[in-house]
Amino acid sequence: MAAFSFNKLVIFGVGLIGGSLARGLRERAGFAGHVVGVGRSVKSVERALELGVIDEAAALDDDAALSRALQGADIVLLAAPVAQTGPLLARIAPFLDARTIVTDAGSTKSDVVAAARQALGARFVPGHPIAGRESSGVDAALPDLYVDRNVVLCPLPENATDDVERVASMWRATGACVRQMSEAQHDRVFASVSHLPHVLSFALVDQILGTPDAELKFSFAADGFRDFTRIAASSPEMWRDICLANRAALLAELDDYTAVLARFRAAIEASDGAALEAAFTRSRVARKEWQKLGGIKPSGDVAAK
Amino acid sequence: MAAFSFNKLVIFGVGLIGGSLARGLRERAGFAGHVVGVGRSVKSVERALELGVIDEAAALDDDAALSRALQGADIVLLAAPVAQTGPLLARIAPFLDARTIVTDAGSTKSDVVAAARQALGARFVPGHPIAGRESSGVDAALPDLYVDRNVVLCPLPENATDDVERVASMWRATGACVRQMSEAQHDRVFASVSHLPHVLSFALVDQILGTPDAELKFSFAADGFRDFTRIAASSPEMWRDICLANRAALLAELDDYTAVLARFRAAIEASDGAALEAAFTRSRVARKEWQKLGGIKPSGDVAAK
Repeated sequence: MAAFSFNKLVIFGVGLIGGSLARGLRERAGFAGHVVGVGRSVKSVERALELGVIDEAAALDDDAALSRALQGADIVLLAAPVAQTGPLLARIAPFLDARTIVTDAGSTKSDVVAAARQALGARFVPGHPIAGRESSGVDAALPDLYVDRNVVLCPLPENATDDVERVASMWRATGACVRQMSEAQHDRVFASVSHLPHVLSFALVDQILGTPDAELKFSFAADGFRDFTRIAASSPEMWRDICLANRAALLAELDDYTAVLARFRAAIEASDGAALEAAFTRSRVARKEWQKLGGIKPSGDVAAK
Repeated sequence: MAAFSFNKLVIFGVGLIGGSLARGLRERAGFAGHVVGVGRSVKSVERALELGVIDEAAALDDDAALSRALQGADIVLLAAPVAQTGPLLARIAPFLDARTIVTDAGSTKSDVVAAARQALGARFVPGHPIAGRESSGVDAALPDLYVDRNVVLCPLPENATDDVERVASMWRATGACVRQMSEAQHDRVFASVSHLPHVLSFALVDQILGTPDAELKFSFAADGFRDFTRIAASSPEMWRDICLANRAALLAELDDYTAVLARFRAAIEASDGAALEAAFTRSRVARKEWQKLGGIKPSGDVAAK
């Protein structure tokens, strides 16, 4: 059984991400400390309490409950949509103990860092667990969601090394591999391999919907379409927020992608079979190689802080 | 057990598609007739013979064997890459009985129709079974590959109704739903829901490969990337051929998609969250609806010939 460097954990937003952390710590790693869940209303965390995922529920809009929830907290995790980070931090800052470390699970980091620096300074350790499921909410939470998954931490120069290590060890206890990079690098990487594909997938369905024979097209869509558009069934609010939060990096990736597409288009228009085959072959080899490596290749920290 | 309107079937290219037809007819529908497989060399169809998928193997370059293979054939299926349709038809035309119906399994139809009209006239019934697997070759062939799958036939005005019906009943015996549309409509629909997504998926991997931190990006690519790029592991030769064969329809779809992407880009640049959320919501609802209908919605013939 792991020894824990923290005893009281407070999770803001006990859904898939926050709930799986709690379950992973308790059911997988034997964490015996206290877990508090905070929701916009008590009702939103009641289900987590009912499922035994948390020990105590509190409402964000209740000063007394919030104060009690945060008192003596070792680690606070924000697992709410990234757009709420600023308001959330402003709301909880007055109730935080000086020694409490705050971390988050947001999909974008530059915007979160900007908001957190202003509100909390050195006590905020930015993080992003790379895991998800199609279903959301605490009922979808799993104790092993993070096993062999990457959790990216983007430590700030002002963070204490011990604080970063405490957050890292919390995630490691769930079976995750912790990797570090700067927030700018994080946002570039995820704009490329996650945010852009989501936009492209939403766009394909949007395009089909805009044509008079949409129903006919959908009726012939098969396996390729299914996989390509699976992520177009993702949460519109979450992806709206991500697009706005990571706007600069995403626009750069979109422009770069549009240029690649223009190159492909030119080859198709010129009936340049050799160019198409060469490009498709390169992509296929890379995609197969990626798959062979298990899709996700944990290889330790990739960039010095 | 179904009564069959044909007794001798000759399949050119006994891989996943041709092999699954043979296995479906024999193992699922109780077809007791004769199935001949023809390959570029005997070696390429030997495996199909060994597996019992076909009764007889012949090589395309052997005049005597080809003549024997085609003698008395009721139905000939071309299950070779679409680019080979023209040369293949020119090669077999001299050996064909006057009563033999020829059909195909190509992913594009306008180009195939042009080639077949020239070589065979009314005896060619264009077809396209909408089924596939990641693995290819006769070892991947399954008797139930076509169960509840769509098979599109694009009958020509000059086709005899009986000939079309004979091809349709062959596919129905494998469990497939036969649907009819014009070759132009077919090519538009599949440019949209199949060919374009393949190009977009190849392009994303190509884009990442073109950046200096490709390896880092791949190492953080997760489930969304996996599904979005699964089709980027498809056969480069096959997709090169499809892009060239369906060039006009694909270019139109690409341009339309680029316009949608430009609209999304403008919304992101303007931080227009409402527009993004509205578009993402529309796509999500449509994608979920599609999934609920089982992804593939067989609903009979969609367009009169």
